[in-house]
Amino acid sequence: MQDLSQGEEVIEKSLPNIIETEDTSQIEAFLSGLKPGDEARAVAELNKGQQTRLLELLAPEKSAELLRKIAGRGSVDLVEQMPLEQAAGIFEQMPSRQQVDILRELKEKDAKQIIGEFSQPKAEELRQLIAYPEDSAGGLMIPEYLAFSSGMLVKDVLDDLREQGEVYSDYVIQYAYVVSEGGELLGVLRLRDLLLAPTNKPVTDIMIKDPQKIRVDTTLRDLREFFKQYNYLGVPVVNSGDRLLGVVLSATVKDAVNKRSNQIFLKVSGIVGGEEFRTMPLFKRSSRRLSWLSINILLNIVAASVIALYQDTLEKAIVLAVFLPIISDMSGCSGNQAVAVSIRELTLGLVRAKELLRVLFKESTIGIVNGLVLGMLLGGAALLWKGNLYLGLVVGVSLAANTLVAVSFGGMVPLILRRIGADPALASGPLLTTITDMCGFFFVLSFASALLPKLSG
Amino acid sequence: MQDLSQGEEVIEKSLPNIIETEDTSQIEAFLSGLKPGDEARAVAELNKGQQTRLLELLAPEKSAELLRKIAGRGSVDLVEQMPLEQAAGIFEQMPSRQQVDILRELKEKDAKQIIGEFSQPKAEELRQLIAYPEDSAGGLMIPEYLAFSSGMLVKDVLDDLREQGEVYSDYVIQYAYVVSEGGELLGVLRLRDLLLAPTNKPVTDIMIKDPQKIRVDTTLRDLREFFKQYNYLGVPVVNSGDRLLGVVLSATVKDAVNKRSNQIFLKVSGIVGGEEFRTMPLFKRSSRRLSWLSINILLNIVAASVIALYQDTLEKAIVLAVFLPIISDMSGCSGNQAVAVSIRELTLGLVRAKELLRVLFKESTIGIVNGLVLGMLLGGAALLWKGNLYLGLVVGVSLAANTLVAVSFGGMVPLILRRIGADPALASGPLLTTITDMCGFFFVLSFASALLPKLSG
Repeated sequence: MQDLSQGEEVIEKSLPNIIETEDTSQIEAFLSGLKPGDEARAVAELNKGQQTRLLELLAPEKSAELLRKIAGRGSVDLVEQMPLEQAAGIFEQMPSRQQVDILRELKEKDAKQIIGEFSQPKAEELRQLIAYPEDSAGGLMIPEYLAFSSGMLVKDVLDDLREQGEVYSDYVIQYAYVVSEGGELLGVLRLRDLLLAPTNKPVTDIMIKDPQKIRVDTTLRDLREFFKQYNYLGVPVVNSGDRLLGVVLSATVKDAVNKRSNQIFLKVSGIVGGEEFRTMPLFKRSSRRLSWLSINILLNIVAASVIALYQDTLEKAIVLAVFLPIISDMSGCSGNQAVAVSIRELTLGLVRAKELLRVLFKESTIGIVNGLVLGMLLGGAALLWKGNLYLGLVVGVSLAANTLVAVSFGGMVPLILRRIGADPALASGPLLTTITDMCGFFFVLSFASALLPKLSG
Repeated sequence: MQDLSQGEEVIEKSLPNIIETEDTSQIEAFLSGLKPGDEARAVAELNKGQQTRLLELLAPEKSAELLRKIAGRGSVDLVEQMPLEQAAGIFEQMPSRQQVDILRELKEKDAKQIIGEFSQPKAEELRQLIAYPEDSAGGLMIPEYLAFSSGMLVKDVLDDLREQGEVYSDYVIQYAYVVSEGGELLGVLRLRDLLLAPTNKPVTDIMIKDPQKIRVDTTLRDLREFFKQYNYLGVPVVNSGDRLLGVVLSATVKDAVNKRSNQIFLKVSGIVGGEEFRTMPLFKRSSRRLSWLSINILLNIVAASVIALYQDTLEKAIVLAVFLPIISDMSGCSGNQAVAVSIRELTLGLVRAKELLRVLFKESTIGIVNGLVLGMLLGGAALLWKGNLYLGLVVGVSLAANTLVAVSFGGMVPLILRRIGADPALASGPLLTTITDMCGFFFVLSFASALLPKLSG
């Protein structure tokens, strides 16, 4: 008795073991017993063979559900390593939004093949949807919506809702739309108004006429502003001819903005090419990290060449070698604070790329204050250590001056990069440290050269 | 004619000028003509006096609206500098959610005074709401919801909706709830079902019984998992006695997660104490930045002390001074990439704080690959520059070894900090660079000491 229950426990505790049983209902029971976070982690920890086997064993709609939950966490890798037919089967069970999200991330060849498995109108729709820029209303909209023709009465709409209830329950329905025969958007129906209206009224009587709508090419930035202005759950998307194409939800816009913020954090830390997960193959992870590091090492060599120019000075006051890395690191820290504030204000739309002078003023004042404080700290430490006032002066004044440079330049560099069309998150750090290192080394070593007799004395 | 229109334009183009006219309708017209982003920026650019004057001139509900749009961007500062009575007047016009958000950020004294201006039951409600932890269901819920008693018929509900339509239109109503006389949650009414049901049915017949609900002390992490599991717009919040207290919306949870991610980015960059905007006073900005910098400078001095121990070696091979900052900076870059991946995986719940060994394995392999590549690059550069094979070896091997240390340690340090209850975003960077600097300096200089005759030869 005891042995049996223990044996069961051991099997039940590990997903790989359960997959080996090939018992679909047992696998489904195990997965539905996990929290979503644990589910994603359990799937991520499987090897490729186990993952493919798992998705084969599950019914396509369960697989689609599973892919939704682990969205972005290697769900694309999973689809890529799946046989084409299986992938297409799972795709059919997904809402369009998720289909588009995954197709976008797939290699073009794989995406084309999967789209090819769909029947003609659906395939055409998918091709159109992935053609919209990712961060535009077209790329963010849900292409399914409730639309009723302008000739209908309230009771026709209610009948339709009753009949199609099951189909519609998959939709995100906060509003229904009234369209002309040509598909132009005429008005918005609120469920509440439908509820309260006499059933024999035409829908055109109770709809909100001339409703808020956005063009399919509206940018993410403008969408964010729109939903800040209007506290709506969603907004209809139309083409230039006012034809209704879909609905963009406020929640989708928030997600997209959120995704961007996360990318900024990763890019600033030197993770390029999208999110990195530890379940990705070693080569992919290491080469993506190296792409950023190898540019950095070149920039570092350029910056350090300033030191090489002053080898004579260094030889006579070797103690300076202790302070060079400190000045390099501290200037980098001060500058990066200013970079972060600028990137954040750019993202929030609180500063425009052309407001260089305002940022310069705001940052240089901080640079002066913080430079003075840090310069006195480091200069004081140098003075205490060697008892040489001139060493303290060289080191302290250099750090103070370089903090001013770093903070001022750090505040401006994201704006400059944005203006020339480069990515501030990815390029600000390397650019900043190169400049501040060169300046910092130059300040210390040229100042030291001038005071050399006092330093080596 | 021409002069007149030009004159008008100049006045209309600047918010400060319009405030000086003290013409409320003109101010409102100007503000409503701006995009929300521009509105926030225009208000932020005013000085304190102008801001206070602006909110005095606007009707309280317009002021409340304005504060909503510039939420988080100094809206708290604005309230703090306002006379108490004015602040209370504006507060009355806000939905509870916004009241609570601002009260939380205010100094305790100011918050108490504003709450004191409200009548007793409302004041008591606010006190209870701000007592819930910010990142819990209680702290995130909306305390207004539609609830109907279990004895009502569908037509009673419809009548009530019709009568109170105006009041309810301010609520976020996706669902209505059915509660017992004691306030216990019994079921959820979907608007769609109300629409389709015979009007003389009791609401208990058409409600969803035993609905999903969450306890008021549910954490943000569990809320995120809940909404990943269930694709709902919101979920009712109950206390331990199953009494309905409010509704948490999926969108609110997403916002809160988003806010956390943004804080992580800023903290990693050394911005402590919440978001920094350039409109904040100089002293506040500079002292918050300094609090983090001054710890860094101490850590830097500790790390650089390793160099001081090897002054003799440096004196004999001064060229090494060129490479010390490079090794320090490159190890920091490599390590920070690993830190970023770990912080991200911790935030997403993809790694647990105790999985140190798994992370160590995953990172050390990258450390070896990237260390070899970077070591060869830097070693090669040193060899080319000085034509000394041993210099290339010292520098290259040191960078390779230190990259391994930095990447492995960088991957683990956020997990370690999380385990001991410290904030990984704030502390990982300084801790990492101190350790990698010390190691890196030690590798280069001890290795160089061993090969000294070959280096200076």
